[in-house]
Amino acid sequence: MSNNTEFKIRRIETRDFEQVKKALTFLTEVEPLDQARFNKVLEYWTTYKLLEDDTPVYNCFVIVPIESDGKETGEVAAVGTIFIEQKLIHGGALTGHIEDIAVNAQFQGKKLGKKLIDHLSQYGLSNGCYKVILDCAEKNIGFYEKCSFNQAGIEMQIRI
Amino acid sequence: MSNNTEFKIRRIETRDFEQVKKALTFLTEVEPLDQARFNKVLEYWTTYKLLEDDTPVYNCFVIVPIESDGKETGEVAAVGTIFIEQKLIHGGALTGHIEDIAVNAQFQGKKLGKKLIDHLSQYGLSNGCYKVILDCAEKNIGFYEKCSFNQAGIEMQIRI
Ligand SMILES: CC(=O)N[C@@H]1[C@@H](O)[C@H](O)[C@@H](COP(=O)(O)O)O[C@@H]1O
Ligand SMILES: CC(=O)N[C@@H]1[C@@H](O)[C@H](O)[C@@H](COP(=O)(O)O)O[C@@H]1O
Repeated sequence: MSNNTEFKIRRIETRDFEQVKKALTFLTEVEPLDQARFNKVLEYWTTYKLLEDDTPVYNCFVIVPIESDGKETGEVAAVGTIFIEQKLIHGGALTGHIEDIAVNAQFQGKKLGKKLIDHLSQYGLSNGCYKVILDCAEKNIGFYEKCSFNQAGIEMQIRI
Repeated sequence: MSNNTEFKIRRIETRDFEQVKKALTFLTEVEPLDQARFNKVLEYWTTYKLLEDDTPVYNCFVIVPIESDGKETGEVAAVGTIFIEQKLIHGGALTGHIEDIAVNAQFQGKKLGKKLIDHLSQYGLSNGCYKVILDCAEKNIGFYEKCSFNQAGIEMQIRI
């Protein structure tokens, strides 16, 4: 991969299975995930739309490298999702949740994480969200600040 | 209200509009929210189900006081929601998000917040979520720890 590889952002497709799965292993546990399960989740994601318009609730995007002729190489450099929650507060407003951001090893250090976060947060704000939020580890605060996010609160969890 | 008032938890209904709106003002900005908008959001919330079964994606519950004959007083003591996100990670697993927890002023100090959080987190875990998460202000960490939550990360936000 040369230093001037170009990239584009598009919605996830079922053919991205292997590459997206590989990327997500850099974030957390992915197994057991096979192509059939992957397809089923992607299909489910497309069925739900917002209350006011046809924007999908789940919006999963990938960044893919393209060759000089514009063709995709078949790799996926990064993956991430914004899903949009319908609330009652703020007059029945929307909040965007950015989730499951992962960059494949050989594409790290190319500012693709920022490119993806900028895309997702813009997507949320331009589709009516009064805010876009995400949860991250303390060590990633600086990265998200570079993406114009501010610290807002503490994430609490309970697990099985 | 006597000290031995009893309470029950049930799903939100359109007749809860005034009382829920009042409760939510203790959390944040609610305007402009009228009965028509409220009904529309509640209706929207009922249309979306999980991939695997008929569990709704949005689950908004209220705690209401009941009289000795079991009749509701017409008040709403507390309100809160868990909505359930379909992920690809962990084999295509579910995460529960607890949102918009509010307790009406005259019902504060009765441990109804804990009752509600316990209900919502149990609801998520028993409906297949591998974790239930929420975001809160630093000053509320202790309260959520009493509800069996642990600190997991930092909430970051970007606003219009
Ligand atoms: C901004 C971002 O990508 N945050 C992710 C979150 O979306 C993901 O679901 C979680 C998985 O961790 P887990 O496997 O421990 O639940 O990690 C991080 O919090
Ligand atoms: C556990 C809980 O209830 N957390 C709430 C969150 O659900 C709500 O949406 C937000 C509203 O604040 P905002 O009006 O500033 O967005 O406040 C808190 O973070």
